[in-house]
Amino acid sequence: MTTLGIALMGTGRMAHVYGPKINAHPGLSLEVIYNPRASSAEKAAGQYGGRPMDDLDSVLSDARVDAVVIATPTDTHVEYIAASARAGKPIYCEKPLDQTLERVDEALGVLKDHPVPFMLGFNRRFDPDNAALRAAVAAVEIGRLNMLMSWSREPAPPPIEYVRASGGYFVDATIHDIDLLCWIAGERPVEVMAAGSCMFDPAIGAEGDFDMTMTTLKMPSGALVHINNSRACSYGFDQRLEAFGDAGMVQTQNHHEDTLLRWGGSATLARQPLKHFFLERYDQSFYNALDEFHAAVTSDRQPSATAQDGRDALAIALACVASARTGRAVAPDYS
Amino acid sequence: MTTLGIALMGTGRMAHVYGPKINAHPGLSLEVIYNPRASSAEKAAGQYGGRPMDDLDSVLSDARVDAVVIATPTDTHVEYIAASARAGKPIYCEKPLDQTLERVDEALGVLKDHPVPFMLGFNRRFDPDNAALRAAVAAVEIGRLNMLMSWSREPAPPPIEYVRASGGYFVDATIHDIDLLCWIAGERPVEVMAAGSCMFDPAIGAEGDFDMTMTTLKMPSGALVHINNSRACSYGFDQRLEAFGDAGMVQTQNHHEDTLLRWGGSATLARQPLKHFFLERYDQSFYNALDEFHAAVTSDRQPSATAQDGRDALAIALACVASARTGRAVAPDYS
Amino acid sequence: MTTLGIALMGTGRMAHVYGPKINAHPGLSLEVIYNPRASSAEKAAGQYGGRPMDDLDSVLSDARVDAVVIATPTDTHVEYIAASARAGKPIYCEKPLDQTLERVDEALGVLKDHPVPFMLGFNRRFDPDNAALRAAVAAVEIGRLNMLMSWSREPAPPPIEYVRASGGYFVDATIHDIDLLCWIAGERPVEVMAAGSCMFDPAIGAEGDFDMTMTTLKMPSGALVHINNSRACSYGFDQRLEAFGDAGMVQTQNHHEDTLLRWGGSATLARQPLKHFFLERYDQSFYNALDEFHAAVTSDRQPSATAQDGRDALAIALACVASARTGRAVAPDYS
Amino acid sequence: MTTLGIALMGTGRMAHVYGPKINAHPGLSLEVIYNPRASSAEKAAGQYGGRPMDDLDSVLSDARVDAVVIATPTDTHVEYIAASARAGKPIYCEKPLDQTLERVDEALGVLKDHPVPFMLGFNRRFDPDNAALRAAVAAVEIGRLNMLMSWSREPAPPPIEYVRASGGYFVDATIHDIDLLCWIAGERPVEVMAAGSCMFDPAIGAEGDFDMTMTTLKMPSGALVHINNSRACSYGFDQRLEAFGDAGMVQTQNHHEDTLLRWGGSATLARQPLKHFFLERYDQSFYNALDEFHAAVTSDRQPSATAQDGRDALAIALACVASARTGRAVAPDYS
Repeated sequence: MTTLGIALMGTGRMAHVYGPKINAHPGLSLEVIYNPRASSAEKAAGQYGGRPMDDLDSVLSDARVDAVVIATPTDTHVEYIAASARAGKPIYCEKPLDQTLERVDEALGVLKDHPVPFMLGFNRRFDPDNAALRAAVAAVEIGRLNMLMSWSREPAPPPIEYVRASGGYFVDATIHDIDLLCWIAGERPVEVMAAGSCMFDPAIGAEGDFDMTMTTLKMPSGALVHINNSRACSYGFDQRLEAFGDAGMVQTQNHHEDTLLRWGGSATLARQPLKHFFLERYDQSFYNALDEFHAAVTSDRQPSATAQDGRDALAIALACVASARTGRAVAPDYS
Repeated sequence: MTTLGIALMGTGRMAHVYGPKINAHPGLSLEVIYNPRASSAEKAAGQYGGRPMDDLDSVLSDARVDAVVIATPTDTHVEYIAASARAGKPIYCEKPLDQTLERVDEALGVLKDHPVPFMLGFNRRFDPDNAALRAAVAAVEIGRLNMLMSWSREPAPPPIEYVRASGGYFVDATIHDIDLLCWIAGERPVEVMAAGSCMFDPAIGAEGDFDMTMTTLKMPSGALVHINNSRACSYGFDQRLEAFGDAGMVQTQNHHEDTLLRWGGSATLARQPLKHFFLERYDQSFYNALDEFHAAVTSDRQPSATAQDGRDALAIALACVASARTGRAVAPDYS
Repeated sequence: MTTLGIALMGTGRMAHVYGPKINAHPGLSLEVIYNPRASSAEKAAGQYGGRPMDDLDSVLSDARVDAVVIATPTDTHVEYIAASARAGKPIYCEKPLDQTLERVDEALGVLKDHPVPFMLGFNRRFDPDNAALRAAVAAVEIGRLNMLMSWSREPAPPPIEYVRASGGYFVDATIHDIDLLCWIAGERPVEVMAAGSCMFDPAIGAEGDFDMTMTTLKMPSGALVHINNSRACSYGFDQRLEAFGDAGMVQTQNHHEDTLLRWGGSATLARQPLKHFFLERYDQSFYNALDEFHAAVTSDRQPSATAQDGRDALAIALACVASARTGRAVAPDYS
Repeated sequence: MTTLGIALMGTGRMAHVYGPKINAHPGLSLEVIYNPRASSAEKAAGQYGGRPMDDLDSVLSDARVDAVVIATPTDTHVEYIAASARAGKPIYCEKPLDQTLERVDEALGVLKDHPVPFMLGFNRRFDPDNAALRAAVAAVEIGRLNMLMSWSREPAPPPIEYVRASGGYFVDATIHDIDLLCWIAGERPVEVMAAGSCMFDPAIGAEGDFDMTMTTLKMPSGALVHINNSRACSYGFDQRLEAFGDAGMVQTQNHHEDTLLRWGGSATLARQPLKHFFLERYDQSFYNALDEFHAAVTSDRQPSATAQDGRDALAIALACVASARTGRAVAPDYS
């Protein structure tokens, strides 16, 4: 197995997800942890290994760095993509590319001029259950695809500071479902219709954002797609998919902490709590996503989730925002 | 138990559903089966008992007839409602009241002037599972209601003649889900957004109708409601509900023919076929609906599903039609 | 459909089960309710119809009585079987035939001399789920049968007077599982090994009886059979079967009051209570058993559960008693 | 975390299970791989790291070896235990200790004289589901324990050479269930009753062994325990537990490859295949067992599964053999 030396860009929440996964992967070697603040880089290097660095040029010219994993704040993604592409380094970038189509198009332009392998961290594609459902659809197990449905309900609303910086619920969260469902369906919508409410956290509503939404995507094939999202869920992280075709239907189920069934004193059947949130539920998917990145880079092919996929998902999410505001069906800007 | 003498109006498909249920109910006595064609009335009376009659005035002036069950073609409902109300007979009428708001308002006017007990046959309210889900919501088991979802996928498309006379898929079928979900939610939508496709039977599309739809209802409380309908379903009659609140979630499940779990040669777990269609799946609900009618009439109160409920559901279904055609959110005409 | 006039013998608990079922069956007509105490017969006739009678000879010579359903105390079964057989009346007899092999052999002798149709009320054979499992085994869906398992756990111990008169737990309750499993397997055991404890009600232990047991049956084919019984069960009436063969496995599941799944505040999944006890869980089976009796009598064939089946089950249950007492494998007395 | 240098004794099937787990554990360092045949040790060291060694004394006197993991053939376990204990090395030994009580007592004697930390590889205790079930029982969630049940059905019979050397099915396989259930119940049986058949592989019967068994354990508390084992299972590795108490019941479920539910063309519900065999199903348990060993050794306490536990389980398994042969309840030799 060819080993890739990795520079992990960033030391925040997502960097703490990727650090241990890079270490666990036999084909990846964590060479550098970068943060422009030297003290942050040093602290993270103390946890995960790798040399701490605070100078971008030095990182990108380091011979031990074969590829970069970008896990910095969203509004710096395009900048690091551009620098890394110009340096000829393969790039794994945490989603989203950016919150605006303008900046995303800038990144696409750089990647066109400097065509390094590029992968966007749409980790849910790499969850084994989600991947198995897509495989069933691709194998025409359920015939022609007619309906697709996704549930994504988070345990509790994030801090309002997070909401403010997130680009809005559709851009921050629905974008995951959008990418996953378009990838499963093998097509992208001609129009979207979306509705949103704020029923959990009034502070979110005060920002003009929603904390629960329902979205319909109208596909060119005629297939209809439903997504429901909620910023709160009393019973944990509710993540389900359903694909309905003219020859069958297939569903993924939620993940419980264990398989115990309890038949209780009031004569009921109970199961264990759900896995709490995305770090628990999608733990394996982050490893698998890095594995896809490694496999693609070392075999000289494009990884599964491209920059164009990221642009499409953003365009669709922005169309959802417009639809929820105007009450009209909106065509995404794929130009 | 007070016994009500029943005149069953009509001898078609739905009359064949109600005939045996009337006979099975200890408080109902099938006195008359009416059809303007004497031979049809005679044939049905031979099957279910009761005297065959072909003259409406004679039926409504018969002292043994305490109440009428109207199961005639939809476009005759208003006429029979008017005649029965004027004769002072309590009325159970198969849904829908009519396909147009004008005719429904006519019926409402007659019922206002002649206020007999009136019940519309929204049988799904009386399915034990659906009723248990509503009871859980009403008991605030799941806290405040945030989302409601309904699946209704039929095994196979009906004959095109049926489709032509049906008033369209939203008015014919979605109306069931609309009534059920508004009844559960305890409110009616301010706006609807709907989308439809035709992917199963091109003949349905040629009529300008859909054979699969997705509908979103926006409730005054902020709750969001999703309905998906399909005229075809390879695995049987798929009927599910999901209610999501801030303190929990509750679902009904499909009904299988038996409980057998089979662990097979290719190492899979399989269950039995679903109950085939509405006659099998909702068999109990028709009996329970008649039981509600009997209980209401004999205790001098209004039954659960009123004529106004029928008007509301029709207004919402017509708004769905308009939304699916224009791509806009549409406010139902509740005037 | 040929109608059979029925004399219901007895007015106790099981008579109250059979009365309504006889009335509900279109081919059975409840002509007579018999009890040697006239007042009891009159009271029951007031509930279920039929003429009250207190003289056995009059019942058995009544031209309207085509068949008898015996639901009297167990120790009178043989007496009524003998009288009815001599009168040439087809017999449906609640289980068990008797608690002793001697008296059972007496009944078998009478039935040999007066070969009327005879059916023993092993109602669990006629439960749709149990019947579906047997059909799967008979259709060789799971290949050659290797293991069979039965759970039968009752909600709460019966009154100690009932226990005293019951013949012991194996003879009273395990006999149901024994008959059902031998019927499914198509063979009867060469040896049994049984163990019992008393952990719920010390009064049962004081009678020398058990309130929980585990039984193993060794079949001539090599198949092994497990039965567990409990006089108490905190979550309701636990009734399950499992059949394991070299090509698959099939299980029945418990019956819940409805299908609702509840995802609650502490993040668990819960289902509805189980149906409480045998009247609720096996309600359909009593009707189906009478239907089998009707079908057999009117088509002049032997019903499914014969007097010999009853003798076999009793011999096996008595072997269980002996094994639990001695700690040895015991061969049932099939002589 | 204190790191323990490990000498892995043996290079056979189980050594290939432990090698990668030792490497994956942050507190264990694979220092030595031992086999008296140098070539085998070298080959395994090439796969898993560590220095290959073929001289036992050198291994046990190596300063980098803090503890040994014995995964050699069963009939050599006692010899390596004795040598390691005399050298003062903490010992993790794959089960069983030995196939005879005589040799096991020899090991117990050595361990008494040289009291090093000792852990027997009853890995199923460390499966998260099994451990959760025991925790529920220990927390008195189901009240007083009345019944315990275990299913262990293997996908396919092992080669006949394996069977010949295995000590018989009870000693080779049932011993796992015995240890697990006694550990959960917190007591060991006063008597066992067992039955066996040979229905899958006649070669196994020709050896005087069984390929399917049913076992009952009678506990001092009165609790009854059922175990069923099969050398063949068409649908995979069937592993389930059920604990029944006077206040509830708790079950573990089989592990599927993923969570997909498929609703198919013939209207059935299907799930994914089971995990194939013990390497897949109990993968996590081997890691967790080593983790318990590490935690016990580094905190100077005895690990969970002791040599005495191993002796008890063997005594019970041998009692099962005797019971299955004689048809009598047999008291295990705990002397």
